[in-house]
Amino acid sequence: MSHDHSSCCGGHGHSHGHAHDQPPTEGHADLSGPPEAPILVEVTRGGMVESVHRGRACIVDAGGRVLAQWGDIQAPVYPRSAIKALQAIPLVETGALDAYQLTDAELALACSSHNGEIRHTRLAEAWIKRIGLTVNDYECGTHLPYDTETAHELIRNGEAPTAFHNNCSGKHAGFLTTAVHKGEPTKGYVRFDHPVQQRILGVMEQMTGQDLSHAPWGIDGCAIPTIGIPLGAIAYAMARIGNPKDLPDARAEAVTRIRRAWRAHPYLIAGKDTFDTAMMQASGGLVLVKGGAEGVGCAVLPKEGIGIALKIDDGTPRAREVAMAALIRATKVLSEEQWSRAAKLLNTPITNRNGREVGMVRPAEGWAV
Amino acid sequence: MSHDHSSCCGGHGHSHGHAHDQPPTEGHADLSGPPEAPILVEVTRGGMVESVHRGRACIVDAGGRVLAQWGDIQAPVYPRSAIKALQAIPLVETGALDAYQLTDAELALACSSHNGEIRHTRLAEAWIKRIGLTVNDYECGTHLPYDTETAHELIRNGEAPTAFHNNCSGKHAGFLTTAVHKGEPTKGYVRFDHPVQQRILGVMEQMTGQDLSHAPWGIDGCAIPTIGIPLGAIAYAMARIGNPKDLPDARAEAVTRIRRAWRAHPYLIAGKDTFDTAMMQASGGLVLVKGGAEGVGCAVLPKEGIGIALKIDDGTPRAREVAMAALIRATKVLSEEQWSRAAKLLNTPITNRNGREVGMVRPAEGWAV
Repeated sequence: MSHDHSSCCGGHGHSHGHAHDQPPTEGHADLSGPPEAPILVEVTRGGMVESVHRGRACIVDAGGRVLAQWGDIQAPVYPRSAIKALQAIPLVETGALDAYQLTDAELALACSSHNGEIRHTRLAEAWIKRIGLTVNDYECGTHLPYDTETAHELIRNGEAPTAFHNNCSGKHAGFLTTAVHKGEPTKGYVRFDHPVQQRILGVMEQMTGQDLSHAPWGIDGCAIPTIGIPLGAIAYAMARIGNPKDLPDARAEAVTRIRRAWRAHPYLIAGKDTFDTAMMQASGGLVLVKGGAEGVGCAVLPKEGIGIALKIDDGTPRAREVAMAALIRATKVLSEEQWSRAAKLLNTPITNRNGREVGMVRPAEGWAV
Repeated sequence: MSHDHSSCCGGHGHSHGHAHDQPPTEGHADLSGPPEAPILVEVTRGGMVESVHRGRACIVDAGGRVLAQWGDIQAPVYPRSAIKALQAIPLVETGALDAYQLTDAELALACSSHNGEIRHTRLAEAWIKRIGLTVNDYECGTHLPYDTETAHELIRNGEAPTAFHNNCSGKHAGFLTTAVHKGEPTKGYVRFDHPVQQRILGVMEQMTGQDLSHAPWGIDGCAIPTIGIPLGAIAYAMARIGNPKDLPDARAEAVTRIRRAWRAHPYLIAGKDTFDTAMMQASGGLVLVKGGAEGVGCAVLPKEGIGIALKIDDGTPRAREVAMAALIRATKVLSEEQWSRAAKLLNTPITNRNGREVGMVRPAEGWAV
C-alpha cells in the first residue's frame, strides 16, 4: 500500500487542493481521458484472463489525508446504497429513533441493502407499524427478495413481494420515521425537494466536506436522489464515521451509534451469502462494509479511523466485492486466521453448471498489496 | 465506419500479418498494456455518466479484410456461446442431421442459447428421444430457465429444472446426435479429447484460419472446451458463414443450411425479451446475431458477406447488446423503419423499482458511426 499524505477532501463547503496532476472534474465525469482507471480485478478461465474490471479506489483518514489511491478520485461518483450509514444520520440526530424507542437493530436495517429474508422483513414491518404507517406509505417500489430461497417461497405460495422485501425498506423506514417525527408530510418523501432528502443533502455536504449545490444527481433504484460526489470525499466521510473527533457533538454521537449498530448486526446489513455480511463476520467487526449498485463500495475501519471508497467503472458487483476485499487486505488489519475465513471473498471461484470450478475472480496484480 | 482493408485473419493454419502496430499476442491476453480498449458503451443516470464499458470489436469480410476495428483484435478471446453456429457444422457435415430427419428447427436450436421456454424444451426433448437417448445422457448440467415466467412456473409447481432447460440443450443435442451417428461413445462427449470436441476444434481452425494447437482454453459453463481465438479471426469465421465461397463444397453446404436455419428461427435462437431474437426480428433477417457469456457477441450479415465480433472487457451483457446494436447500425444495412423497431436495443432505458426511467445504456460517442 503506497502512502501519499495529500489532502483531497478535508474542510467543509469546498474541495481542497490535492497533490495529483489531474485537474479536478466539475459536474461531469469524463472517463474517456486520462488518467486511466487501473485494472483492479481480473477474471480467469482455464489458461487465460477472460475479463477485466477497471476502477478507482482510495483509503483516506479522518483528517482528510489520502493514504492510498488508485485512479482518479476527484471525478464525481454516485454513491448509491454504499452510503446508507450517512443517510441514517438524521434518523438519530433528529431524535426520531429514540422517540419511537427503536433499537440498534432498526438502525442497522436503516443502513442495510438487505436480502428480504424473514428477519429483515419482519423487522421492517414491525417498525412501520410502530410509527403508525402501513406498507402503502413506502415509495421505494417492490422487487423479489434478493435471497433466492425467500424469493422462491413467495413464488411457490403465489404471493407478490411487497415494499418490505425491497432491499431498501429499512432505509425508507428511517426516512418515514424522521418525517413523522418532524411532523412533515410523508407523501413525496423520496423527492429531491422534500425536507427528508434536503436534510440528507446537508449531512452529505458536511460529512464529505463538499459543496454539493451544483453536483450532478440522478434518481436511485428506490426513487430517492443520488448525488455525484468525488470518490475521495466519500472515503473521507467514511473515515469520519470511524473517527468522529472533528464532528459537532450531536453528529459525533449519532455517527457513533450508527457505527455500533452497523457493527453489531452484520446479518441485518445484507444477509445470507452476501459479501458485506460475510466480510464483516470474518473480520470480527474490525471492518464495516457496504456495497452499492453500479460497483460502488464503502468501508469503515473504526479502530484505525480510516475510510475506503471504490467505484468499478463498469458497475459489476463481482468486481466491487473482490476489489473491496483487496483494499481491506491492503490495510493489514485482519489476521491470517481472519483471512482464512475470508479467502473466497478475495479469490472467488467461478463454477460451471455442473458445479466444477472453471475460473476465478481475483485482484489484479500490482495494486493494493 | 472507418475502412481499413488490412487482412488480419485470412488463410488456414496460421495467422497472417496485419497492418496494425500492436504485436500479435500469443496464448495470453495481457490487457493491462496498450492498446487500451476504447469505451464502447456508457451508462447514464440523471446528470452524469455513471458507468462505462470498454471493449474491442471488428467488422471483417469473407476475404479476411478488416473493414473496421476498435481496439486490439489479435489477442485471444473465448468465444463462448457466440459461435454455436460453428459448433453445429459437424452435425450437418457428418450427415447426422439428415440421418435422423431433423429439420431447420432442431438445427436452429443447436445454434441457440435459449430461454428454456416450452417451445425450446419440447423441441429438445423430442430430439433426444428421436436419437434414442434420455435427459440423463446430457453432460451440460442444469439451471433455471432464463425466461422468468417459465422459471416461476417450475418453482410454483415444485419442479426442478432439467438439462432440457439448460440454455445449451440444443447445442448438446447436436453433439449427442453426431456422436450417436458416428458410433462414438456418448459418455464424456464434453471432454476436450472426445471426437465430438476434436471435430469442432478442426472446424474452428479451418473456419477461423488459425492454428489453435497451442491456443489457451478453458471449460465453458456447459462443461465443453472454449478455445481462445483472436477476435478478428472470429469475425472472419462469421463472414464465411455469410459468404462461404472459399469453403470446400460440403462445408459451404453445411454453413448455408445453418445460416438459413438461424435466419428462419430467431425465436428458437434465444426467446422472449432477448436481445438476439429482438434484433434479428427487427432486421427482418438481414442480420443474424448471437451473444455469448462474458460479453462476447457475433453477427453475420449474409447479404453483404461480412462478420462482426466483439468482446466487452468486463463481460457485461448490457454492454455487449448495445455495442452490437451500434456495430450493426454502423454497417447501415437496416432501414430507418427497421431501426424504429430496434430503437430500444440501441438506447436501452434503465428503470427504477417504480418503473420510472432514470437512465440509459447507450453507445459511447465517437465510434461505430
